[in-house]
Parts: sequence; C-alpha cells; structure tokens
Amino acid sequence: IPGPAFESARRGVEEQIRELWWFLSNELKALKSDVGNAAKNRPQDALVHSLENNVEDLLKLSTDRFRVLQRHVKRLKEDSDQKGWREQEALELSSLVQRRLDYLQNPMNCRTAKKLVCTLSKACGYGCQLHHLVYCLIMAYSSQRTLILRSQGWRYSKKGWESLFLPLSRTCNETNTQNIVHWRDSGNENDQEVLLPIIDAMKPRVPQLPLSVPVDLFESLKKFHGDPPAWWIGQMIFFLTRYQPDTDKFITENQIKIGFHTDTPIVGVHIRRTDKVGSEAAFHSVDEYMVEVEDWFQNHDVERYPLAAVPRRVYVASDDPEVFKVLQRSYPAYEVIGSPDISKTAALNTRYSHSSVMGVIFDIHNLARTDFLVCTFSSQVCRAAYEAMQSVNVDASNRFKSLDDIYYYGGQNGHKRRAVFPHHSANDGKHSESSPLRGEIDFVPGDLIGIAGNHWNGYSVGTNDRSGHKGLFPTYKTEEVVQVADFPIYPEVPRRDPSKELGIQA
Amino acid sequence: IPGPAFESARRGVEEQIRELWWFLSNELKALKSDVGNAAKNRPQDALVHSLENNVEDLLKLSTDRFRVLQRHVKRLKEDSDQKGWREQEALELSSLVQRRLDYLQNPMNCRTAKKLVCTLSKACGYGCQLHHLVYCLIMAYSSQRTLILRSQGWRYSKKGWESLFLPLSRTCNETNTQNIVHWRDSGNENDQEVLLPIIDAMKPRVPQLPLSVPVDLFESLKKFHGDPPAWWIGQMIFFLTRYQPDTDKFITENQIKIGFHTDTPIVGVHIRRTDKVGSEAAFHSVDEYMVEVEDWFQNHDVERYPLAAVPRRVYVASDDPEVFKVLQRSYPAYEVIGSPDISKTAALNTRYSHSSVMGVIFDIHNLARTDFLVCTFSSQVCRAAYEAMQSVNVDASNRFKSLDDIYYYGGQNGHKRRAVFPHHSANDGKHSESSPLRGEIDFVPGDLIGIAGNHWNGYSVGTNDRSGHKGLFPTYKTEEVVQVADFPIYPEVPRRDPSKELGIQA
Ligand SMILES: Nc1nc2c(ncn2[C@@H]2O[C@H](COP(=O)(O)OP(=O)(O)O)[C@@H](O)[C@H]2O)c(=O)[nH]1
Ligand SMILES: Nc1nc2c(ncn2[C@@H]2O[C@H](COP(=O)(O)OP(=O)(O)O)[C@@H](O)[C@H]2O)c(=O)[nH]1
Repeated sequence: IPGPAFESARRGVEEQIRELWWFLSNELKALKSDVGNAAKNRPQDALVHSLENNVEDLLKLSTDRFRVLQRHVKRLKEDSDQKGWREQEALELSSLVQRRLDYLQNPMNCRTAKKLVCTLSKACGYGCQLHHLVYCLIMAYSSQRTLILRSQGWRYSKKGWESLFLPLSRTCNETNTQNIVHWRDSGNENDQEVLLPIIDAMKPRVPQLPLSVPVDLFESLKKFHGDPPAWWIGQMIFFLTRYQPDTDKFITENQIKIGFHTDTPIVGVHIRRTDKVGSEAAFHSVDEYMVEVEDWFQNHDVERYPLAAVPRRVYVASDDPEVFKVLQRSYPAYEVIGSPDISKTAALNTRYSHSSVMGVIFDIHNLARTDFLVCTFSSQVCRAAYEAMQSVNVDASNRFKSLDDIYYYGGQNGHKRRAVFPHHSANDGKHSESSPLRGEIDFVPGDLIGIAGNHWNGYSVGTNDRSGHKGLFPTYKTEEVVQVADFPIYPEVPRRDPSKELGIQA
Repeated sequence: IPGPAFESARRGVEEQIRELWWFLSNELKALKSDVGNAAKNRPQDALVHSLENNVEDLLKLSTDRFRVLQRHVKRLKEDSDQKGWREQEALELSSLVQRRLDYLQNPMNCRTAKKLVCTLSKACGYGCQLHHLVYCLIMAYSSQRTLILRSQGWRYSKKGWESLFLPLSRTCNETNTQNIVHWRDSGNENDQEVLLPIIDAMKPRVPQLPLSVPVDLFESLKKFHGDPPAWWIGQMIFFLTRYQPDTDKFITENQIKIGFHTDTPIVGVHIRRTDKVGSEAAFHSVDEYMVEVEDWFQNHDVERYPLAAVPRRVYVASDDPEVFKVLQRSYPAYEVIGSPDISKTAALNTRYSHSSVMGVIFDIHNLARTDFLVCTFSSQVCRAAYEAMQSVNVDASNRFKSLDDIYYYGGQNGHKRRAVFPHHSANDGKHSESSPLRGEIDFVPGDLIGIAGNHWNGYSVGTNDRSGHKGLFPTYKTEEVVQVADFPIYPEVPRRDPSKELGIQA
C-alpha cells in the first residue's frame, strides 16, 4: 500500500497536468481566434493564413498528446491500487461515520439526551434545504447532540421530510422540554435542547463549519480522497437521504422507464436555467456543456483503446424542458436520457410540490451515479449531486467539470490555497489589459490566498491574506489547504464495524 | 513494493510528458521564430508584433509549468521507492551478472575450458574498441566460453589492455591449443577454441547481439531500469574496465587536481570535434550543449525549491581544447571543470598514445559520475559514458540529452518501436513541405517500426516493417520494444550472493 506521500505526489501530478492543459488549450484557442480574426480581415495576407493553420494543427496535435498522457496517468492510479486498498479504506471510513451518526441519533435515553433542533423552513430550493440539513447534522455531530428535525409544513411536501426519507432516528425524533434555548455564542453545553439558527445567522462562526473536516478522520481520508470536504458533506447527505420505500420505488421505476443504467458509461449534465439565470448565475448554452461531455468521452475512448469507442450517452437534468429539444436536434449521435416531464415540474409555478421534489431527488440520485458530471457549481442541485457522488464512489473528486464556480458550501468558512512558489507580476493586483498577465497578484511561498474562483484556464482568482490584494494568480504555483477542526471522536463507536469483523454481511 | 505494471505506467507518464514537452516547446519556438521574422519585415504591423509577444509569453509560462510538473513526477518516483526496493533489486541483479562473469572467466580447469578469442586490433578509437570488447564478452557469456583477450601491440598502449585494466581472468588468460578455429555459421559447440570476428563481419547474426538482453534477467531488470540494453552493456563495461592500481591512482589524483567531485550537482558535457565533425557527425556549438545544461539546472532548482538554487558546475570533456576557452568566455556563471591538457592529447596526431588513452578513460569515468550527460550519441565516447553511468546508478536512463542520435550499439540487431495507436497522415512516407505533417508514415496498432532516430521534437524517424515506408512519426503513439534473447542461466551461480546472505561485507 503506497504511503500518503506517494498519493499526494500522484495527485500532484494529476493536478499539474490538468492545470497545464487548461492553460495551454485556452492560450492556444485564444491565439487561434486572434489569428483567425486577423485572417478574416486580411484575405490576402498569406503569413496570417499559414499561422492560422499552424496554430490549429498545434491545438489538435496537443489535444491528442494530452489524451494519451491522461491514459497513462489513469493507469498509474489503477496500477497503484493493489488489492483495492483505496476501496477498503473508503469503505471503512464511511462505515465509521455512518455508525457514529447512528449512535448519535439513537441515544439510549431520548428523554435525557441533549438535542439540537433544526427547522426546514428556509425559503429556498431543495438543494439549499438539503445543505441546511447537512449543516444541522454537522453541528449535531460536533456538539454531540441528537438532531431533531422539524419539517411539518415543508414547502415541498406538507407531510414533511419523513414522507420521503427515513426519520433521522429510530427512537428519538421529538423534543421533550418546554425550554428550547437559542444557540448562543458560547456555553450551550448545559442546555438540554438548543435551537440552531441558519448558517448565515450563526455568530460567532465555529471552526467546525464546512469546509472543515474532522481531524481524526483526515489521516485516512486524505489517503484515498482528493476533495475531503466534499466527501465529508457527502457522508452527511448519505445519512440524511436514506429513502422511504415509496421514494425508492419511484426512483427504480422511473429509471427503468427512461432507460437509466450504468452498465455502459454515461455522463451527467445538469443545466440550471429559469430563476437562476441572470440573478445568481450566467446563461450557458447546451453546446458549452456538450463540449465537456464529448471531451470526456474522447478521453475515455483513448483510455480504453484498443477497445472500441463507447456509445455516447448523457443523462440530462434541468429545470428547462427546452434543453431536451436542443439536444435531440443538435446531438443526434447522443442517446439522451432524462425526463422533460420532470423538467416541467421544476418550473417556478409548480416547483414547490410533491411531484417536483420527487423529480429533483430523482435527478440528483441519477447525476450522482454517472461517470462524470458537467454542470454549474453555482447551483446547489449540482453541488449536491457532486457531494452524493462522493458517497457512491471511492473518490469522484475529479469526475466533474463546472462551467462556473469552484466547489463551495454556501456560508462556508474561508477556502484557502497556499503559495508554494513565489509569484511576481508587473502589476500586483492592479488591472491592465495585456493578457495573460492581466491583474495578477504577487505572493511569496507560504502566503495564504483566499480563493474565490478558478477560471479553468490555468488561473484562479483570489485575495492574498498578507497583502490584501485581489486578482488572478497561476493556480499551479499554489496548493490546496484542507482545513481540519477538532470534532468529538465518539470512542463508544468502534473504529471497525464489529459485524464485519465477524464476517457477517452488512 | 509496486508491481511491474505500476512501474511501467509510471515510466509511461514520464515518457509522455517528455515527448509532449519536446513537441510543444519545439512547435512554440518555431511559431515564435516565424512570427519574429515576420515582425522584422513588417515594423508597422501591430498585430504581428503583439502575436510575437503572446507566443513568447506562452513559451515562457509553459516552460515554468512543465518544470513544476516534472518536480511532481520526480517526487512520485521517490515516494514510490519505499525501503529503497529499486536499489535493492539493482544491486542484486548487477551482483548476479558480475558473479556469473567471474565464474565464466575463471574456469576450474583452464586447459580444457572452452574459449572465445578476441583481438584488440580494430582500427578505431577507444570507445569503439571498448564496444568491441563488450561484444566479445556478450558472445562469450552467451556461448559459455571463457573470453581470451589478445591485446599485445594495442595502438593505444603497446603493453596491452592489461597495463590499464585488470586481466579478464585470474586463472585463464591464454589459449592452449594450436587449433583455434574461426567462428562459424553454426556448430561451434565442439570446438575448444574459437576466434570471434568483429561484429560487422559476423554472419549469421545471432539474436544475442545488442540490443538484446537475457530473458532470465528481464523480469527483474524492467522493474527498476528504463533502458535495459544500456544497463546490460553497462554491466559488461563494468567487468571489462576494472582498473589497475596505477589507473585508479591516475584518476583519483587528477580528480583532485581539477576539482572534480560529486558533492554538489554537476552536469557532464562531451563535445566531440576534430575528425568526427563533417565525416560522421554534424558540428554543434558550445551554446547548443549549454542550453541543455542550463535547462537541467533550472529543472533541478525547481525540484529542490524552496532550497536555494545550486551553483552551476559542468564537467567538460572534448577532443577540442578550444571549447574550454569558449566556455570561460561565454559562461562566467559556470564553474568549468575539466582539463584542456587532456583535450590536447586527444588531437589526432597524439591520440594513439598511453597518455591519450589515460585521458579518455578519465573523461569517461567522470562523465559517468555526473548527474546528467549532454553529448552526441553519434560518439562512442558519449555512449560508453552513458552505459557506464548505468552501472554506477540504479537507473540513469533519463539522465542524458543527446544532440543527435538516439542510443544505439554499433552493429546492433534492429531497434523497434511498436505502434500502440493508429496513425494516418496525408502523405504516408511521401515528403511534402507542410510542417509538422512533413513526410509522416502511417501505421496501425501492432505494427513494428524500425527506429532510426528521434528528432527530439515529438517526432521520430523510422521504417514501418509492414509497409516498408520510411518517414517521420509521432513518437508518443508508439512504445519501446525491448528485445530479449535466450542466454545461458548459469545455474552454478546462486541468484543471491551467498556472502551477502551471511551478512559478510563484499
Ligand atoms: N427536477 C429538477 N428540478 C430542478 C433542477 N434544477 C433546478 N430544479 C428545481 O429548482 C430548485 C433550485 O433550488 P436549489 O436546489 O436551492 O438550487 P439552486 O437554486 O440551483 O442553487 C431545485 O431544488 C428544484 O426544485 C433539475 O435539474 N431537475
Ligand atoms: N580524452 C578525450 N579523448 C577524446 C574525447 N573525445 C574523443 N576523444 C578521442 O577520440 C577517440 C574517438 O574514438 P571513439 O572512442 O571510437 O569515439 P567516436 O569516434 O567519437 O565515436 C577517443 O577514443 C579518444 O581517443 C574526449 O572528450 N576526451
């Protein structure tokens, strides 16, 4: 079993290649379009025309070389996974977290147990509400309080959360005092029942909020996973969304109906439109998503070669049924799986209904089970699918392409990268027009940079904690900082599942 | 310990990155020079000038990204070397080969032992003659005959090979019959003493000739080494060139005199001039070598970062003393180690002398102990240094840059690469002027391609065995074929050194 240093070096190679390719392909595309525009204006200029061809060839030939390189990188990962140690480690850790949650949620004595109360009254969509519950469960876990969920009158389904999902406890789903106190700055320990505010109203902010992960899990987690915070949140989602039999049945029946299966590769696409576009996110055309889908399939074909290219299949979820028509018209080579009917229920005027919530649950369920996810991380539906993906794979941290934001959790504590190499630009944080050195910030090794976004072209945008300057920086000179925080370690829950030790099937 | 599949995937990643970088940097340099020339002719053309800047930035920024990627690739190698398994494996295998040679060369009964006779009368330089002996020793090993070397009257030193190197045997250095027969097409087995022709005159050619490696060593060898044929030849050189005490003393004293040591990094440069240039090789300026030297140091600095950049040191060997003057004048930042006096003895009029051969032995010894070797593989001095390098390192297969040929052995059996991906070009093997698709050959997966050279720009040149067409091909779509051949397995020699088993120091 390779040590953690090896895995971190291997991930480093993966990340550097990815960043290099984003950088190069974007620069070459920009060059191509510059030269192409000039060629249009100068039909007689032979030099410009030959440059246009050169740059086009260069882009095409480099793309193929990168695909072949990626094939080797993939093999390196597979060939270092002797005896499936990654899966073993992942199964053990997720079992530990699930058993701890089960322990927390099923106290010996519900009457005297300390409790944390959450309501499902946030005026927002399903993804947003699910993330609210994730936050509640993390706070429950970190304060060792049983989470009591109040979801009667839920806007999506009047009968509440438990009409779709298993109750969070077999034994303890109610408060039992009249004295539920509000979460306070400090010193809640002695209060038996505490009401948690929404994350945005929490003050002071505790270090256990996302994107922090429990320090006692981190050593194991970093061995097999490339995005620990997403894995941790995925574990919370896994516990929260254990389906009621009816929900399960709905999903299975509809999967059969639309032909969703994962026997052959399938890429998931989530296209968020309607109320989101223009307010919280920019519009992205179907083509922008499909460029990434086709790119994934081409990489996959090179990876599998000399096996035959796989049929193109895409699972599509959207709140805009029009996207299905566009796909059918413009991508005849693709089998498009998904349901325009479900899309229709997501329209604003029918959104907060039982059938609509079933639709979004179904979509997230399926998106999480695709091989690769193309979407906009600005949408909570897309992020929830990515998080859930982590709980059904050993490590799906690379199985996405977001057309806009990097991964984040709404209301999170800061997300930092640490400078490894120094960076000096002509204009530390001050904007000028010369690309690609536009508005870059300076840093020295060790500087922490609050990252606000990745332009997916080799550059990210962020603020240097030390200088306060904000601007672009070359991502490859920095490394991800995973925040860890102290959480209770639940010594009552054995590290390994005792039923597994005895060889009993779970 | 990672399995062979892992190591081969890791080497695949290394090779693909190298090929990608050669390709990209060469294409970008070509683009830069095209646009630069145009800019000179069109001082008023703002577009062309801005393109020139863009391409220059792109090259500079990509270079840094590749260096950082290489740093991660290097770490991956180091971090997968738990408990130094590579070194362990390498030590064991080289000990096995050396003990087999010792066994072969010291028969119980010299009078009745079968023998292979070689003379050192080839009218060529030291490198060429050393390679002749390598061939003799390989044939001795493969036919299980003790090698008898006749080197009296050697052009370099009248007293013969043994005046510089230990005799090839402690017990058996002479023939003892009058009936030394010439090596025949077949059926030498019953002849006691056989005289081997030079490799060029050997007919038919046996499969054991370079670049073949013994099949019984290959499984272990491919685990730790990237260029098995060079390693195998390096083992022969190691056995052949065990120094006499005087030679040893000469080397040590002169190393001290010129300040050669390997406590801090040093790059070796061999610059072959005089009789070689124009006849067997093209002229390469000092600058061409130094570009590669500086490139290595810059990679090395990035690798070590945040440790300080290392001082620039270069060991220079040449048959042209002028190169020392050029280096001193043009590279003041470099400490140049080497001896113009030794260079002078390599002049054609003094070359075949005792002091001259001491010089070339000294140069090869030192070149083999540098961290990286920049030279022309068209020279046997350079190839001998590269081969010797393999016997003083676990794996130095990546520690060179040849300005001309790929690695080869004069008189070798074919050297092939195998097509992994198909390749179709507009003009299968027929030359046209449009770069980079100029004169490319086609292939389908599985085709064997006899490789004649690498242009170090992402393309190699070779002949498709199937179609007979000769031309350029993209190296990354092919993989190296290491030829293995049956050799005796010397069951009398234990696989592990018994003295090591007992914990006795060698
Ligand atoms: N079924 C379905 N509903 C969607 C989809 N996209 C958006 N919706 C609906 O729109 C809501 C969006 O709110 P939310 O989940 O908070 O995500 P966000 O607004 O995209 O960040 C979802 O909860 C769904 O009710 C989709 O792809 N499928
Ligand atoms: N000392 C010294 N001698 C050299 C050097 N380069 C060439 N020579 C001399 O030139 C000979 C060249 O012949 P050979 O070894 O067959 O190599 P090739 O001709 O370069 O392929 C060497 O053996 C040396 O005698 C050098 O760098 N140092």
